Amino acid sequence: MDPAAAPIDFRTEPSRYKHWKLSTENGVAYLTMDVNEEGGLKPGYKLKLNSYDLGVDIELADAVQRLRFEHPEIGAVVIRSQRDRIFCSGANINMLGLSTHDHKVNFCKFTNETRLAIEDASTHSGQTYICSINGIAAGGGYELALACEQILLADDGSSAVSLPELPLLAVLPGTGGLTRLVDKRMVRRDHADFFCTTAEGLRGKRAREWRLVDQLIPPSKLVEQTQKIAEEVAAKSSRPRDAKGIALPTVERRFDGDTIRYANLTVEIDREGRSAKFRLNGPSSAPPDDVHAAGAAFWPLALAREFDDAMMHLRLNETEIGTWVLTSQGDAALVEAHDALLAEKADDWLVREIVLYWKRTLKRLDVSSRSLIALIEPGSCFTGTLLEVALAADRSYMLDGVFDGSNLPAATVRLTDMNFGPYPMGNGLTRLATRFLYDPGHVDTLKNQAREPLDAAAADEAGLVTFIPDDIDWEDEVRLAVEERAGFSPDGLIGMEANLRFPGPETMETKIFARLSAWQNWIFQRPNATGPEGALKLYGTGKQSKYDRKRA
Amino acid sequence: MDPAAAPIDFRTEPSRYKHWKLSTENGVAYLTMDVNEEGGLKPGYKLKLNSYDLGVDIELADAVQRLRFEHPEIGAVVIRSQRDRIFCSGANINMLGLSTHDHKVNFCKFTNETRLAIEDASTHSGQTYICSINGIAAGGGYELALACEQILLADDGSSAVSLPELPLLAVLPGTGGLTRLVDKRMVRRDHADFFCTTAEGLRGKRAREWRLVDQLIPPSKLVEQTQKIAEEVAAKSSRPRDAKGIALPTVERRFDGDTIRYANLTVEIDREGRSAKFRLNGPSSAPPDDVHAAGAAFWPLALAREFDDAMMHLRLNETEIGTWVLTSQGDAALVEAHDALLAEKADDWLVREIVLYWKRTLKRLDVSSRSLIALIEPGSCFTGTLLEVALAADRSYMLDGVFDGSNLPAATVRLTDMNFGPYPMGNGLTRLATRFLYDPGHVDTLKNQAREPLDAAAADEAGLVTFIPDDIDWEDEVRLAVEERAGFSPDGLIGMEANLRFPGPETMETKIFARLSAWQNWIFQRPNATGPEGALKLYGTGKQSKYDRKRA
Repeated sequence: MDPAAAPIDFRTEPSRYKHWKLSTENGVAYLTMDVNEEGGLKPGYKLKLNSYDLGVDIELADAVQRLRFEHPEIGAVVIRSQRDRIFCSGANINMLGLSTHDHKVNFCKFTNETRLAIEDASTHSGQTYICSINGIAAGGGYELALACEQILLADDGSSAVSLPELPLLAVLPGTGGLTRLVDKRMVRRDHADFFCTTAEGLRGKRAREWRLVDQLIPPSKLVEQTQKIAEEVAAKSSRPRDAKGIALPTVERRFDGDTIRYANLTVEIDREGRSAKFRLNGPSSAPPDDVHAAGAAFWPLALAREFDDAMMHLRLNETEIGTWVLTSQGDAALVEAHDALLAEKADDWLVREIVLYWKRTLKRLDVSSRSLIALIEPGSCFTGTLLEVALAADRSYMLDGVFDGSNLPAATVRLTDMNFGPYPMGNGLTRLATRFLYDPGHVDTLKNQAREPLDAAAADEAGLVTFIPDDIDWEDEVRLAVEERAGFSPDGLIGMEANLRFPGPETMETKIFARLSAWQNWIFQRPNATGPEGALKLYGTGKQSKYDRKRA
Repeated sequence: MDPAAAPIDFRTEPSRYKHWKLSTENGVAYLTMDVNEEGGLKPGYKLKLNSYDLGVDIELADAVQRLRFEHPEIGAVVIRSQRDRIFCSGANINMLGLSTHDHKVNFCKFTNETRLAIEDASTHSGQTYICSINGIAAGGGYELALACEQILLADDGSSAVSLPELPLLAVLPGTGGLTRLVDKRMVRRDHADFFCTTAEGLRGKRAREWRLVDQLIPPSKLVEQTQKIAEEVAAKSSRPRDAKGIALPTVERRFDGDTIRYANLTVEIDREGRSAKFRLNGPSSAPPDDVHAAGAAFWPLALAREFDDAMMHLRLNETEIGTWVLTSQGDAALVEAHDALLAEKADDWLVREIVLYWKRTLKRLDVSSRSLIALIEPGSCFTGTLLEVALAADRSYMLDGVFDGSNLPAATVRLTDMNFGPYPMGNGLTRLATRFLYDPGHVDTLKNQAREPLDAAAADEAGLVTFIPDDIDWEDEVRLAVEERAGFSPDGLIGMEANLRFPGPETMETKIFARLSAWQNWIFQRPNATGPEGALKLYGTGKQSKYDRKRA
């Protein structure tokens, strides 16, 4: 198969890594970057100087994920480079120049999600990331460092951090750099301004004084000091040093024409209608006594992994499929029983990881630039964790009553403890709190209805669903909604959805996806960056861009 | 002069309004929209159906401003339409289709600032805006309503509110509509999704139940009920019913080649260097005993009006001038004396208005898409209110010492009470609090240094300035900084500055300028909207756009 045409596969494992080495010692994991120049995901560019493309980041995301599940004994993770004078030079510029607009944008979104997953591990999972920089950390290289909790820099007169995107390429750092500079590291805005306009970046004392790095370490002592610092951090971790991890085998899936079949999920693509129908299946049996023994087969974990994989597959490989229709099927009581177990055993390290993973998976859904329509029909099981999927939708339709000629009883939805805290959105609020911003007291009222099956009228009254057509109207109303969506401009929908989905407070995370990404997308469309004479196209040719000077 | 080439003039007054009628009665002002179809700012389009262009909004902004200063007796403002079945149909689509990208973006920014000025009047000035809708309020028409504190809608089966931008034009509502829907009115996100994809909008009971409007009123009673409601609101206003307003005469300015001369401000444009140097002059005498008698000649008010006018002139008419160099000249002690008076008489209605106006003017500077470089030289008076201008800059240079051969003493900067509260940025924090996010205690420390002249070393130590070159380095360092800025991509700079200037909390206001505007700018660049086959270009032709379906 032509490698340029092959779908991008997000499934990997350490033995297949081309660009990273993963090792562990004394409670510390070392993620060592050593990018294979010839190992680009697509043909046409070489990954020189530890630069990366989506393939490099897929491995990083896999490593971050596996460390959480397979390595309970790891309390700190060091990110470093195998190379002598280069830490990482960021996203590969030739790759960017060759990429379509939608690939660039989807690439940046995934790398952002991975950086946030790193921070999530540091904050919630007891695996604190430390970046140890020898040589140059430029652009995306420094942004990777910014996602870590500590940045150690070799004090050797040449090791430096920089964000040279604006001066060299006329674009923005695309992986949260600007936001993390001023919001996470709280670098003074005038210092940030100077730093981001200085292509060669900063090093040594000024880098530390301006809060760009945390510690300067003589180069001869960098390895040893990094290890010492990481081991100290690991020693304080809440993770159970003596526990045994669970294995994450490859997520199995089968392409069957336009249908993708996973064990607990089916995705049917309707190319003409430009939509994909997800059917998330509930568990087939009661929760196991021992979650650890069940491992990756434990239903909530298995489904999250499949759902995550399906979303990434569709995002990158099916960009014309603009609407995701979300359905579920199964026994609500069994979903509720699994949720009860997740709530009850919240302190177990593995259960904690599974819940945190669902949190991230639901956030992945929130920031997917696809229209999301939930259909709640007889036979569905939108309960607790699965109800979050419907609450993440832009709108939902719930059948009021039964389908004529079907013996399935009327659909119900159910709230569980999992709807009231464990799955906050990027804005820091639960989906219910976000939904009922106008009446926070209503969320408390809903707590009293937890575990009660709510039929369409009750769900509507509770504000949990958008429309409740009956059997007579259902088919037309749903079909029109999905068809109408497919008729709108995808760009307009992306902007609208990005603005309506996240009311209320903003966080570093929502700033990255909304503010920073939106500006970057704009700049990626501007001739000054991506036109034939734009800086991104001319980079490396020695030619100078002639910019349109008008300020918008 | 060719009207298409004439510079856009932001100075107007009620006797020259073409599109609005302003009347007052019983403490209530009535701003009645009756757009003159033939009165467009530029040739080529007709302002049908109470649609607007920048010229219509310039009059609205002028009226909002004059009501605050000239009408202390007004406690409520009603916005309504003169037309029978149409309230306002939003921004004129033919005008948008004919406009350059930079004009569209700058137009939206100004209309956004005007909507925020309306909300500022309601919140801080005791002039509460009420919108009374008979007929259709579509797009920008409904967004104007959203900027008001109450929305009254005729309950007549045809009056409706709508945001049809996405379905009809493939763009977003550009004046805060999406943000205000979910963040101000806290409309549920699924309701907002349906509403924004329904071109004809909503009316009657559903419009009220979904929180889109506040009250439904039978059409025969709309005028009388609106008056009653407004008079009740006005009666509760904190404004002094018996006070006498001050007149706001036309801001005088003179074009002298590339120099613009105001009484208290000079702007010199360097076309080759693509920069403009602002020189804000300090007061020439001690503050008057009676601010009311001084009126529009009172230095802080006079300078704010001139600065505001200059910024708007440059934004719309000088889009290639990408850097604003900010300087000041005058007696710091006199600035300090004026600040002391502003602080001391903060409860006087007129002083309150002047301070609120400076707040808005400084916010206008914050969101101007120009690089801002402050130069603090001997002879300058960056004190208190004027120091905010330097703190708003992306970076500042302060001469350490004196210029060789000059007898001007070394520059100092001074903090006053005005730096510690009255001028919050859009993010709700003062510029000092935003600057020192990493150490909030430092702001308290600075309070102890208020009114102390700080020389370059002290200002640097206090973190108030970026660089302090001495006489030997000054010229080269400043010249290089300004030249370097002019060499960068304007688009990249806009995005970078928008991301670095507003760390910390986000508000509806920062969301509108950062998140919503950035997405809109992106969409304005996308062929699906503005390409030759884009929806904005084909609107009204009967032709259907063929969209690129890829989701970015």
